Amino acid sequence: MPKVVFSYFPVKALGESARLLLSYGGQDFEDNRVTPEKWPEFKPSTPFGQMPVLEIDGKQYTQSLAIARYLGRKYGLGGADAEEDFEIDQNVDFVNDIRAKAAVVCYEADEELKKKKHEDFSKNVYPVLLAKLNQIAEKNNGHIALGKLTWADFVFAGMFDYLKHMTQDPELGSKYPALQKVVDKVYALPQLQAYLASAPETTL
Amino acid sequence: MPKVVFSYFPVKALGESARLLLSYGGQDFEDNRVTPEKWPEFKPSTPFGQMPVLEIDGKQYTQSLAIARYLGRKYGLGGADAEEDFEIDQNVDFVNDIRAKAAVVCYEADEELKKKKHEDFSKNVYPVLLAKLNQIAEKNNGHIALGKLTWADFVFAGMFDYLKHMTQDPELGSKYPALQKVVDKVYALPQLQAYLASAPETTL
Repeated sequence: MPKVVFSYFPVKALGESARLLLSYGGQDFEDNRVTPEKWPEFKPSTPFGQMPVLEIDGKQYTQSLAIARYLGRKYGLGGADAEEDFEIDQNVDFVNDIRAKAAVVCYEADEELKKKKHEDFSKNVYPVLLAKLNQIAEKNNGHIALGKLTWADFVFAGMFDYLKHMTQDPELGSKYPALQKVVDKVYALPQLQAYLASAPETTL
Repeated sequence: MPKVVFSYFPVKALGESARLLLSYGGQDFEDNRVTPEKWPEFKPSTPFGQMPVLEIDGKQYTQSLAIARYLGRKYGLGGADAEEDFEIDQNVDFVNDIRAKAAVVCYEADEELKKKKHEDFSKNVYPVLLAKLNQIAEKNNGHIALGKLTWADFVFAGMFDYLKHMTQDPELGSKYPALQKVVDKVYALPQLQAYLASAPETTL
Protein backbone atom coordinates (compact mmCIF):
# COMPACT_ATOMS: atom_id res chain seq x y z
CA MET A 1 0.00 0.00 0.00
CA PRO A 2 1.40 3.42 -0.93
CA LYS A 3 2.45 5.85 1.78
CA VAL A 4 -0.17 8.60 1.92
CA VAL A 5 -0.07 11.87 3.84
CA PHE A 6 -2.98 14.30 3.72
CA SER A 7 -2.31 17.84 4.93
CA TYR A 8 -4.97 20.41 5.72
CA PHE A 9 -6.07 22.78 8.45
CA PRO A 10 -7.65 21.12 11.53
CA VAL A 11 -11.18 21.52 10.14
CA LYS A 12 -13.43 19.68 7.68
CA ALA A 13 -14.15 22.54 5.20
CA LEU A 14 -12.31 21.78 1.94
CA GLY A 15 -10.27 18.89 3.32
CA GLU A 16 -12.81 16.46 4.69
CA SER A 17 -13.87 15.11 1.28
CA ALA A 18 -10.39 13.68 0.74
CA ARG A 19 -10.20 12.25 4.28
CA LEU A 20 -13.57 10.56 3.73
CA LEU A 21 -12.65 9.30 0.27
CA LEU A 22 -9.34 7.85 1.46
CA SER A 23 -11.21 6.12 4.28
CA TYR A 24 -13.82 4.83 1.84
CA GLY A 25 -11.04 3.44 -0.33
CA GLY A 26 -9.49 1.61 2.61
CA GLN A 27 -6.35 3.70 2.23
CA ASP A 28 -4.34 4.23 5.41
CA PHE A 29 -3.13 7.82 5.58
CA GLU A 30 -1.37 10.20 7.89
CA ASP A 31 -3.97 12.81 8.78
CA ASN A 32 -1.64 15.78 9.02
CA ARG A 33 -3.68 18.62 10.54
CA VAL A 34 -1.65 21.80 10.10
CA THR A 35 -2.55 24.48 12.62
CA PRO A 36 -2.72 28.13 11.49
CA GLU A 37 0.41 28.68 13.63
CA LYS A 38 2.36 26.03 11.70
CA TRP A 39 0.97 26.98 8.29
CA PRO A 40 3.51 29.70 7.35
CA GLU A 41 6.30 27.21 7.90
CA PHE A 42 4.54 24.47 5.89
CA LYS A 43 3.29 26.70 3.07
CA PRO A 44 6.50 26.88 0.97
CA SER A 45 6.53 23.08 0.69
CA THR A 46 3.11 23.04 -1.04
CA PRO A 47 2.75 23.14 -4.85
CA PHE A 48 0.67 26.35 -5.00
CA GLY A 49 1.07 27.79 -1.49
CA GLN A 50 -2.33 26.30 -0.62
CA MET A 51 -3.86 23.39 1.24
CA PRO A 52 -5.15 20.70 1.05
CA VAL A 53 -2.17 18.72 -0.19
CA LEU A 54 -2.34 14.98 -0.73
CA GLU A 55 0.98 13.17 -0.92
CA ILE A 56 1.15 9.66 -2.38
CA ASP A 57 4.58 8.05 -2.26
CA GLY A 58 6.12 11.52 -2.36
CA LYS A 59 4.06 12.88 -5.28
CA GLN A 60 2.03 15.95 -4.30
CA TYR A 61 -1.57 16.63 -5.34
CA THR A 62 -3.33 19.87 -4.53
CA GLN A 63 -6.73 21.58 -5.08
CA SER A 64 -9.61 19.99 -3.19
CA LEU A 65 -12.00 19.32 -6.07
CA ALA A 66 -9.30 17.91 -8.33
CA ILE A 67 -8.20 15.63 -5.47
CA ALA A 68 -11.78 14.47 -4.83
CA ARG A 69 -12.34 13.72 -8.52
CA TYR A 70 -9.03 11.81 -8.67
CA LEU A 71 -9.74 9.73 -5.56
CA GLY A 72 -13.35 9.20 -6.63
CA ARG A 73 -12.21 7.76 -9.94
CA LYS A 74 -9.68 5.56 -8.16
CA TYR A 75 -12.28 4.16 -5.77
CA GLY A 76 -15.10 3.56 -8.29
CA LEU A 77 -17.08 6.66 -7.35
CA GLY A 78 -16.87 8.38 -10.73
CA GLY A 79 -19.18 8.17 -13.73
CA ALA A 80 -19.39 5.28 -16.18
CA ASP A 81 -18.75 7.49 -19.22
CA ALA A 82 -18.23 11.10 -20.33
CA GLU A 83 -21.93 11.95 -19.90
CA GLU A 84 -22.01 10.67 -16.34
CA ASP A 85 -18.70 12.31 -15.44
CA PHE A 86 -20.11 15.54 -16.82
CA GLU A 87 -23.17 15.41 -14.58
CA ILE A 88 -21.00 14.89 -11.51
CA ASP A 89 -18.66 17.73 -12.48
CA GLN A 90 -21.51 20.11 -13.29
CA ASN A 91 -23.30 19.52 -9.99
CA VAL A 92 -20.06 19.71 -7.98
CA ASP A 93 -19.30 23.05 -9.63
CA PHE A 94 -22.73 24.26 -8.54
CA VAL A 95 -22.02 23.14 -4.96
CA ASN A 96 -18.74 25.00 -5.23
CA ASP A 97 -20.48 28.15 -6.47
CA ILE A 98 -22.59 28.18 -3.33
CA ARG A 99 -19.52 27.65 -1.15
CA ALA A 100 -17.66 30.45 -2.93
CA LYS A 101 -20.54 32.90 -2.47
CA ALA A 102 -20.77 32.10 1.23
CA ALA A 103 -16.99 32.49 1.53
CA VAL A 104 -17.13 36.02 0.10
CA VAL A 105 -19.42 36.98 2.98
CA CYS A 106 -17.74 34.91 5.68
CA TYR A 107 -14.23 36.21 4.96
CA GLU A 108 -15.25 39.87 4.58
CA ALA A 109 -12.87 41.68 6.95
CA ASP A 110 -15.02 44.78 7.43
CA GLU A 111 -17.51 43.76 10.16
CA GLU A 112 -20.23 46.22 9.23
CA LEU A 113 -20.10 45.29 5.58
CA LYS A 114 -20.05 41.60 6.46
CA LYS A 115 -23.28 42.06 8.40
CA LYS A 116 -24.87 43.89 5.49
CA LYS A 117 -23.77 41.26 2.98
CA HIS A 118 -24.89 38.46 5.24
CA GLU A 119 -28.38 39.95 5.44
CA ASP A 120 -28.53 40.40 1.68
CA PHE A 121 -27.22 36.91 0.83
CA SER A 122 -29.38 35.22 3.50
CA LYS A 123 -32.43 36.75 1.93
CA ASN A 124 -31.63 36.85 -1.78
CA VAL A 125 -28.85 34.40 -2.61
CA TYR A 126 -28.60 31.35 -0.32
CA PRO A 127 -32.31 30.41 -0.37
CA VAL A 128 -32.44 30.41 -4.17
CA LEU A 129 -29.26 28.39 -4.65
CA LEU A 130 -29.85 25.97 -1.78
CA ALA A 131 -33.45 25.32 -2.84
CA LYS A 132 -32.13 24.51 -6.31
CA LEU A 133 -29.46 22.19 -4.91
CA ASN A 134 -32.01 20.55 -2.63
CA GLN A 135 -34.22 19.98 -5.66
CA ILE A 136 -31.27 18.36 -7.46
CA ALA A 137 -30.60 16.11 -4.46
CA GLU A 138 -34.29 15.20 -4.26
CA LYS A 139 -34.38 14.27 -7.92
CA ASN A 140 -31.25 12.20 -7.35
CA ASN A 141 -32.71 10.30 -4.41
CA GLY A 142 -30.49 11.87 -1.76
CA HIS A 143 -27.38 12.19 -3.90
CA ILE A 144 -25.72 15.12 -5.67
CA ALA A 145 -25.67 13.46 -9.09
CA LEU A 146 -26.59 10.31 -11.07
CA GLY A 147 -29.09 9.13 -8.46
CA LYS A 148 -26.35 7.15 -6.72
CA LEU A 149 -23.29 7.48 -4.53
CA THR A 150 -20.46 9.37 -6.27
CA TRP A 151 -17.51 11.45 -5.12
CA ALA A 152 -19.79 14.49 -5.41
CA ASP A 153 -21.61 13.33 -2.27
CA PHE A 154 -18.30 13.26 -0.39
CA VAL A 155 -17.53 16.82 -1.49
CA PHE A 156 -20.89 18.06 -0.28
CA ALA A 157 -21.03 16.03 2.94
CA GLY A 158 -17.48 17.03 3.85
CA MET A 159 -18.23 20.74 3.56
CA PHE A 160 -21.74 20.77 5.06
CA ASP A 161 -20.69 21.98 8.51
CA TYR A 162 -18.49 24.60 6.84
CA LEU A 163 -21.47 25.77 4.80
CA LYS A 164 -23.58 26.05 7.94
CA HIS A 165 -20.80 28.05 9.56
CA MET A 166 -20.35 30.41 6.62
CA THR A 167 -24.08 30.97 6.06
CA GLN A 168 -24.51 31.29 9.86
CA ASP A 169 -27.40 28.88 9.58
CA PRO A 170 -27.24 25.75 11.78
CA GLU A 171 -30.69 24.76 10.46
CA LEU A 172 -29.66 24.10 6.85
CA GLY A 173 -30.28 20.38 7.35
CA SER A 174 -33.90 20.75 8.44
CA LYS A 175 -34.59 23.45 5.86
CA TYR A 176 -33.19 21.32 3.03
CA PRO A 177 -33.98 17.71 3.90
CA ALA A 178 -32.66 16.20 0.65
CA LEU A 179 -29.28 17.83 1.35
CA GLN A 180 -29.30 16.44 4.88
CA LYS A 181 -30.01 13.05 3.30
CA VAL A 182 -26.86 13.34 1.16
CA VAL A 183 -24.82 14.02 4.29
CA ASP A 184 -26.46 11.24 6.32
CA LYS A 185 -25.93 8.65 3.59
CA VAL A 186 -22.22 9.43 3.36
CA TYR A 187 -21.68 9.47 7.11
CA ALA A 188 -23.50 6.13 7.44
CA LEU A 189 -21.15 4.31 5.06
CA PRO A 190 -19.58 1.38 6.92
CA GLN A 191 -16.17 2.08 5.31
CA LEU A 192 -16.02 5.46 7.10
CA GLN A 193 -16.85 4.41 10.64
CA ALA A 194 -13.32 3.72 11.85
CA TYR A 195 -12.12 7.12 10.60
CA LEU A 196 -15.16 8.95 11.98
CA ALA A 197 -14.72 7.34 15.39
CA SER A 198 -11.09 8.44 15.60
CA ALA A 199 -11.20 11.84 13.85
CA PRO A 200 -10.99 14.93 16.08
CA GLU A 201 -14.31 16.75 16.62
CA THR A 202 -14.49 19.97 14.64
CA THR A 203 -17.30 22.48 14.31
CA LEU A 204 -16.63 23.33 10.68
CA MET B 1 -23.60 16.39 -36.90
CA PRO B 2 -25.59 17.14 -33.73
CA LYS B 3 -27.45 20.42 -33.39
CA VAL B 4 -25.51 22.57 -30.93
CA VAL B 5 -26.52 25.86 -29.33
CA PHE B 6 -24.22 27.69 -26.95
CA SER B 7 -25.77 30.41 -24.81
CA TYR B 8 -23.83 33.00 -22.83
CA PHE B 9 -23.60 36.73 -22.31
CA PRO B 10 -22.07 38.70 -25.22
CA VAL B 11 -18.57 38.54 -23.71
CA LYS B 12 -15.69 36.05 -23.56
CA ALA B 13 -15.33 35.68 -19.76
CA LEU B 14 -16.58 32.21 -18.76
CA GLY B 15 -18.10 31.36 -22.12
CA GLU B 16 -15.26 31.74 -24.58
CA SER B 17 -13.56 28.46 -23.65
CA ALA B 18 -16.57 26.51 -24.92
CA ARG B 19 -16.84 28.61 -28.10
CA LEU B 20 -13.15 27.98 -28.78
CA LEU B 21 -13.37 24.28 -27.97
CA LEU B 22 -16.41 23.77 -30.21
CA SER B 23 -14.54 25.55 -33.00
CA TYR B 24 -11.45 23.44 -32.39
CA GLY B 25 -13.60 20.31 -32.62
CA GLY B 26 -15.04 21.43 -35.94
CA GLN B 27 -18.50 21.54 -34.40
CA ASP B 28 -20.93 24.00 -35.97
CA PHE B 29 -22.88 25.79 -33.28
CA GLU B 30 -25.37 28.57 -32.84
CA ASP B 31 -23.52 31.26 -30.90
CA ASN B 32 -26.46 32.53 -28.86
CA ARG B 33 -25.27 35.72 -27.15
CA VAL B 34 -27.86 36.61 -24.54
CA THR B 35 -27.87 40.30 -23.64
CA PRO B 36 -28.36 41.34 -20.01
CA GLU B 37 -31.76 42.69 -21.11
CA LYS B 38 -32.85 39.30 -22.44
CA TRP B 39 -31.31 37.32 -19.57
CA PRO B 40 -34.26 37.43 -17.11
CA GLU B 41 -36.49 35.95 -19.79
CA PHE B 42 -33.95 33.24 -20.70
CA LYS B 43 -32.89 32.38 -17.14
CA PRO B 44 -35.82 30.07 -16.19
CA SER B 45 -34.99 27.81 -19.14
CA THR B 46 -31.46 27.13 -17.82
CA PRO B 47 -30.70 24.14 -15.55
CA PHE B 48 -29.35 26.17 -12.60
CA GLY B 49 -30.45 29.72 -13.44
CA GLN B 50 -26.95 30.37 -14.75
CA MET B 51 -25.02 30.67 -18.00
CA PRO B 52 -23.19 29.37 -19.94
CA VAL B 53 -25.50 26.66 -21.22
CA LEU B 54 -24.48 24.27 -23.96
CA GLU B 55 -27.27 22.42 -25.70
CA ILE B 56 -26.52 19.33 -27.77
CA ASP B 57 -29.52 17.83 -29.57
CA GLY B 58 -31.74 19.25 -26.84
CA LYS B 59 -29.70 18.04 -23.85
CA GLN B 60 -28.51 20.92 -21.67
CA TYR B 61 -25.05 21.20 -20.11
CA THR B 62 -24.14 23.98 -17.70
CA GLN B 63 -21.13 25.16 -15.59
CA SER B 64 -18.22 26.48 -17.63
CA LEU B 65 -15.44 24.27 -16.28
CA ALA B 66 -17.50 21.10 -16.47
CA ILE B 67 -18.39 21.99 -20.07
CA ALA B 68 -14.74 22.67 -20.97
CA ARG B 69 -13.63 19.37 -19.44
CA TYR B 70 -16.40 17.53 -21.30
CA LEU B 71 -15.61 19.10 -24.67
CA GLY B 72 -11.88 18.73 -24.09
CA ARG B 73 -12.30 15.01 -23.52
CA LYS B 74 -14.48 14.75 -26.64
CA TYR B 75 -11.92 16.52 -28.84
CA GLY B 76 -8.79 14.75 -27.58
CA LEU B 77 -7.62 17.59 -25.34
CA GLY B 78 -7.81 15.70 -22.04
CA GLY B 79 -5.18 13.64 -20.27
CA ALA B 80 -4.08 10.14 -21.24
CA ASP B 81 -4.83 8.70 -17.79
CA ALA B 82 -5.97 9.59 -14.27
CA GLU B 83 -2.63 11.19 -13.39
CA GLU B 84 -2.68 13.44 -16.44
CA ASP B 85 -6.35 14.34 -15.97
CA PHE B 86 -5.53 15.24 -12.38
CA GLU B 87 -2.79 17.66 -13.40
CA ILE B 88 -5.13 19.43 -15.82
CA ASP B 89 -7.90 19.64 -13.21
CA GLN B 90 -5.56 20.86 -10.49
CA ASN B 91 -4.08 23.62 -12.61
CA VAL B 92 -7.48 24.68 -13.97
CA ASP B 93 -8.76 24.95 -10.39
CA PHE B 94 -5.81 27.21 -9.62
CA VAL B 95 -6.67 29.40 -12.61
CA ASN B 96 -10.23 29.45 -11.34
CA ASP B 97 -9.09 30.49 -7.86
CA ILE B 98 -7.40 33.53 -9.35
CA ARG B 99 -10.51 34.37 -11.37
CA ALA B 100 -12.71 34.00 -8.28
CA LYS B 101 -10.52 36.31 -6.21
CA ALA B 102 -10.54 38.96 -8.91
CA ALA B 103 -14.32 38.60 -9.19
CA VAL B 104 -14.78 39.33 -5.49
CA VAL B 105 -13.10 42.67 -6.05
CA CYS B 106 -14.60 43.44 -9.45
CA TYR B 107 -18.20 42.78 -8.38
CA GLU B 108 -17.96 44.62 -5.07
CA ALA B 109 -20.93 47.03 -5.18
CA ASP B 110 -19.56 49.54 -2.66
CA GLU B 111 -17.26 51.75 -4.74
CA GLU B 112 -15.04 52.87 -1.89
CA LEU B 113 -14.55 49.36 -0.62
CA LYS B 114 -13.89 48.12 -4.15
CA LYS B 115 -11.09 50.64 -4.47
CA LYS B 116 -9.61 49.57 -1.14
CA LYS B 117 -9.82 45.88 -2.04
CA HIS B 118 -8.39 46.49 -5.47
CA GLU B 119 -5.34 48.20 -3.95
CA ASP B 120 -4.89 45.39 -1.45
CA PHE B 121 -5.28 42.56 -4.00
CA SER B 122 -3.13 44.31 -6.63
CA LYS B 123 -0.33 44.50 -4.13
CA ASN B 124 -0.71 41.34 -2.06
CA VAL B 125 -2.77 38.77 -3.93
CA TYR B 126 -2.61 38.96 -7.75
CA PRO B 127 1.20 39.23 -8.06
CA VAL B 128 1.76 36.15 -5.90
CA LEU B 129 -0.84 34.00 -7.66
CA LEU B 130 -0.08 35.18 -11.17
CA ALA B 131 3.68 34.75 -10.68
CA LYS B 132 2.98 31.19 -9.56
CA LEU B 133 0.73 30.53 -12.56
CA ASN B 134 3.30 32.07 -14.88
CA GLN B 135 5.92 29.76 -13.39
CA ILE B 136 3.61 26.79 -14.05
CA ALA B 137 3.11 27.90 -17.66
CA GLU B 138 6.84 28.38 -18.08
CA LYS B 139 7.57 24.90 -16.77
CA ASN B 140 4.91 23.59 -19.17
CA ASN B 141 6.40 25.31 -22.20
CA GLY B 142 3.61 27.85 -22.65
CA HIS B 143 0.78 25.58 -21.55
CA ILE B 144 -1.27 25.35 -18.35
CA ALA B 145 -0.57 21.65 -17.82
CA LEU B 146 1.24 18.55 -19.14
CA GLY B 147 3.61 20.58 -21.29
CA LYS B 148 1.19 20.37 -24.21
CA LEU B 149 -2.12 21.68 -25.53
CA THR B 150 -5.05 20.65 -23.34
CA TRP B 151 -8.50 22.06 -22.62
CA ALA B 152 -6.91 23.93 -19.71
CA ASP B 153 -5.26 26.27 -22.22
CA PHE B 154 -8.66 27.08 -23.72
CA VAL B 155 -10.06 27.89 -20.27
CA PHE B 156 -7.21 30.27 -19.56
CA ALA B 157 -7.00 31.86 -23.01
CA GLY B 158 -10.76 32.36 -23.11
CA MET B 159 -10.79 34.28 -19.84
CA PHE B 160 -7.57 36.27 -20.22
CA ASP B 161 -9.27 39.51 -21.30
CA TYR B 162 -11.78 39.06 -18.47
CA LEU B 163 -8.91 38.65 -16.02
CA LYS B 164 -7.28 41.83 -17.32
CA HIS B 165 -10.59 43.62 -16.90
CA MET B 166 -11.19 42.37 -13.37
CA THR B 167 -7.65 43.01 -12.16
CA GLN B 168 -7.73 46.39 -13.99
CA ASP B 169 -4.37 45.50 -15.46
CA PRO B 170 -4.10 45.60 -19.28
CA GLU B 171 -0.40 44.73 -18.94
CA LEU B 172 -0.83 41.21 -17.59
CA GLY B 173 0.52 39.76 -20.83
CA SER B 174 3.81 41.62 -20.72
CA LYS B 175 4.20 41.10 -16.98
CA TYR B 176 3.63 37.37 -17.29
CA PRO B 177 5.06 36.32 -20.66
CA ALA B 178 4.48 32.58 -20.22
CA LEU B 179 0.79 33.29 -19.68
CA GLN B 180 0.71 35.44 -22.81
CA LYS B 181 2.30 32.51 -24.61
CA VAL B 182 -0.56 30.22 -23.53
CA VAL B 183 -3.05 32.71 -24.97
CA ASP B 184 -1.09 33.24 -28.19
CA LYS B 185 -0.74 29.52 -28.84
CA VAL B 186 -4.47 28.94 -28.50
CA TYR B 187 -5.43 31.92 -30.65
CA ALA B 188 -2.99 30.80 -33.36
CA LEU B 189 -4.60 27.37 -33.77
CA PRO B 190 -5.71 26.99 -37.39
CA GLN B 191 -8.98 25.33 -36.30
CA LEU B 192 -10.06 28.55 -34.56
CA GLN B 193 -9.44 31.07 -37.33
CA ALA B 194 -12.86 30.94 -38.97
CA TYR B 195 -14.60 31.47 -35.63
CA LEU B 196 -12.21 34.22 -34.57
CA ALA B 197 -12.68 36.06 -37.84
CA SER B 198 -16.46 36.06 -37.49
CA ALA B 199 -16.89 36.45 -33.70
CA PRO B 200 -18.01 39.87 -32.47
CA GLU B 201 -15.25 41.99 -30.89
CA THR B 202 -15.53 42.12 -27.11
CA THR B 203 -13.31 43.79 -24.55
CA LEU B 204 -13.75 41.11 -21.89
